Amino acid sequence: MALGDKVRNNQVLLRHFVTGFPKDSDFELRESTIELSIPQGSGVPAVLVKNLYLSCDPYMRTRMAKSLQVKGYVDSFQPGSPISGYGVSRVIDSSFPKLKVGDYVWGFTGWEEYSLITEPEKLFKIDHTDVPLSYYTGLLGMPGMTAFAGFYEVATPKKGEKVFISAASGAVGQLVGQFAKLFGCYVVGSAGSKDKVDLLKNKFGFDEAFNYKEEPDLDAALKRCFPEGIDIYFENVGGKMLDAVLLNMNVHGRIPICGMISQYNLDKPEGVHNMAMTIFKRVKMEGFLVFDYYHLYQKFLETVLPQIKEGKIVYVEDFAEGLENGPAALVGLFSGRNVGKQVVIVSHE
Amino acid sequence: MALGDKVRNNQVLLRHFVTGFPKDSDFELRESTIELSIPQGSGVPAVLVKNLYLSCDPYMRTRMAKSLQVKGYVDSFQPGSPISGYGVSRVIDSSFPKLKVGDYVWGFTGWEEYSLITEPEKLFKIDHTDVPLSYYTGLLGMPGMTAFAGFYEVATPKKGEKVFISAASGAVGQLVGQFAKLFGCYVVGSAGSKDKVDLLKNKFGFDEAFNYKEEPDLDAALKRCFPEGIDIYFENVGGKMLDAVLLNMNVHGRIPICGMISQYNLDKPEGVHNMAMTIFKRVKMEGFLVFDYYHLYQKFLETVLPQIKEGKIVYVEDFAEGLENGPAALVGLFSGRNVGKQVVIVSHE
Ligand SMILES: NC(=O)c1ccc[n+]([C@@H]2O[C@H](COP(=O)([O-])OP(=O)(O)OC[C@H]3O[C@@H](n4cnc5c(N)ncnc54)[C@H](OP(=O)(O)O)[C@@H]3O)[C@@H](O)[C@H]2O)c1
Ligand SMILES: NC(=O)c1ccc[n+]([C@@H]2O[C@H](COP(=O)([O-])OP(=O)(O)OC[C@H]3O[C@@H](n4cnc5c(N)ncnc54)[C@H](OP(=O)(O)O)[C@@H]3O)[C@@H](O)[C@H]2O)c1
Repeated sequence: MALGDKVRNNQVLLRHFVTGFPKDSDFELRESTIELSIPQGSGVPAVLVKNLYLSCDPYMRTRMAKSLQVKGYVDSFQPGSPISGYGVSRVIDSSFPKLKVGDYVWGFTGWEEYSLITEPEKLFKIDHTDVPLSYYTGLLGMPGMTAFAGFYEVATPKKGEKVFISAASGAVGQLVGQFAKLFGCYVVGSAGSKDKVDLLKNKFGFDEAFNYKEEPDLDAALKRCFPEGIDIYFENVGGKMLDAVLLNMNVHGRIPICGMISQYNLDKPEGVHNMAMTIFKRVKMEGFLVFDYYHLYQKFLETVLPQIKEGKIVYVEDFAEGLENGPAALVGLFSGRNVGKQVVIVSHE
Repeated sequence: MALGDKVRNNQVLLRHFVTGFPKDSDFELRESTIELSIPQGSGVPAVLVKNLYLSCDPYMRTRMAKSLQVKGYVDSFQPGSPISGYGVSRVIDSSFPKLKVGDYVWGFTGWEEYSLITEPEKLFKIDHTDVPLSYYTGLLGMPGMTAFAGFYEVATPKKGEKVFISAASGAVGQLVGQFAKLFGCYVVGSAGSKDKVDLLKNKFGFDEAFNYKEEPDLDAALKRCFPEGIDIYFENVGGKMLDAVLLNMNVHGRIPICGMISQYNLDKPEGVHNMAMTIFKRVKMEGFLVFDYYHLYQKFLETVLPQIKEGKIVYVEDFAEGLENGPAALVGLFSGRNVGKQVVIVSHE
């Protein structure tokens, strides 16, 4: 294919706004076409990219809703238009001086084969291609940065502290656990299947792990794993787990609130009853967004790239092959279908 | 009365452990006697004090329960024994070198006319007696220190920020509001009666105030008072108010969690549903206890004493006259009977 050719451009559209749990059928695949060059005379610098890997991220649930809970956070998807999200792409045309044809980038792109990106300054150029490119949707992309910022900057860990992580085998959780182990913490994770628990203990080196779906009493499970209490809870799920954790926090404990995936599909979120524990135990809970920490991205790469090369950090990805399998992969996050970082492969090169 | 005399020593006892809302009748008055000198040969330094003012504080509810929610926080009262709490007292005998007869002190004492204090090192000697002594149960004592630490240390305010305070006319709240106004913030408080709302606006200089009992929709009340959102919520009550506040927090807002008085008498605390707002808004919630900040007490006095003398800080107290009226004053906290800091006068000198 040459620049200027008109080619097929399959796209994933949102069919309608979603309430409750999202379903595969809330999305549809549309076959359209695109001309492989940046339209003339648009005036603003742009890049045309070929999308290679798309990232399935829980926050995308927010964008499937008509009225966003929070203004200024992210925009809703538009029914009938291709959805968007993080991805890894190759530049095939550019009117943006900092990116040239052949460069690899990660950042916001469309769920389609080719995307015209009109805010190219928001993309991250990929300088290190001696690691799997898909890592830039996970380990070396937004979720990796989230784990890094949430653990080091928000949780302010001390060596020897006791760390609990929920949704621990996921894109973010598996990294938080490995960072915490490398830092010298005692680390326990929860996840939703026996296989995930095995991964936590045997692949990621967690000290303990449990399947929260098989624990009738989360408080008891936490007391079993943390006879001396929890210093840091890396919060990914919210709801009942948070309530149980609050009963087990140590004095001056910290709870970086990264996400609350168990609440995203509920019309009315569950109530958290044990908030008063934060007073007696002087606990700090802090919601954070990765967007506030991207200035640390270079530092993050300098820390993590060598750790990957030395085998100190490993990463598990779950690939869905083909854009047409993207919707199922995306909605699968909310039933725990994914084992590790969920990626959609649009094209292998 | 001379040292060594045997005198009447009325005491307030807990009759039995309390569940639900505490009642006057959960306490009883016992007439006993005491010898006005430190018993010989006890070995440890002690002081014998005459109690002047006793402080009614919401945390005392915790101590009326048999099983404390949290170990190591405070001890339960013992049924059949006099209860204890903060108070202002005069030393009438001392085997503790740092305190001498005639000194005034504040700190933990018994709900009785005279108390033998066997941990005198925990008392604060009162050096400034040119202010009402009762202030050392409130403005210049534990609640004052709580307001100071919670506002300046935990909330880390910035000039011009928008501050909301619940239970705003109480011992702690009225001070937080005045500190925040002096600091250059926009300040709104909620309280449970028209008179209290008037106090907030007309005596303490709050910008706005509302009676939460007359607001069918707390979210709407907050949106009315904070069209631009809340930067700091000084949390005294918990429950529904916290839920409504979470919907109105600004990005990077802070919630020092001082207390949750609306929850202390419930068997099962209410659920807080809007916790996920902390993520989108990057809100920090931090439970704190005044005990962790007493090292700032001298700095606090140096700040606040001049402000009192210059009339920049005022303080409203609510006096119950006589130990026998103590229980009603104490339980009155939980129905909002008190207007300002609730003090029990045991003796005028
Ligand atoms: N603050 C930020 O900037 C930021 C950035 C990225 C991600 N996040 C948040 O971080 C969290 C993890 O994201 P991720 O990308 O690492 O996703 P992920 O863990 O790879 O995938 C989501 C996982 O959540 C678990 N889950 C789904 N429903 C659940 C429920 N009802 N209760 C408990 N667990 C449930 C499932 O694992 P199980 O099989 O273990 O249930 C599922 O595999 C999410 O809450 C996300 O919103 C926040
Ligand atoms: N963290 C610490 O170290 C520390 C230290 C001191 C105090 N505190 C906490 O700070 C808060 C205020 O204490 P304070 O000494 O200043 O007490 P206070 O405000 O002088 O007295 C308690 C007031 O709380 C209000 N209240 C009672 N039940 C309520 C309910 N269900 N909902 C809403 N408001 C209710 C009442 O006022 P209304 O008429 O306005 O309802 C009552 O007058 C309490 O939660 C206390 O536990 C914490």
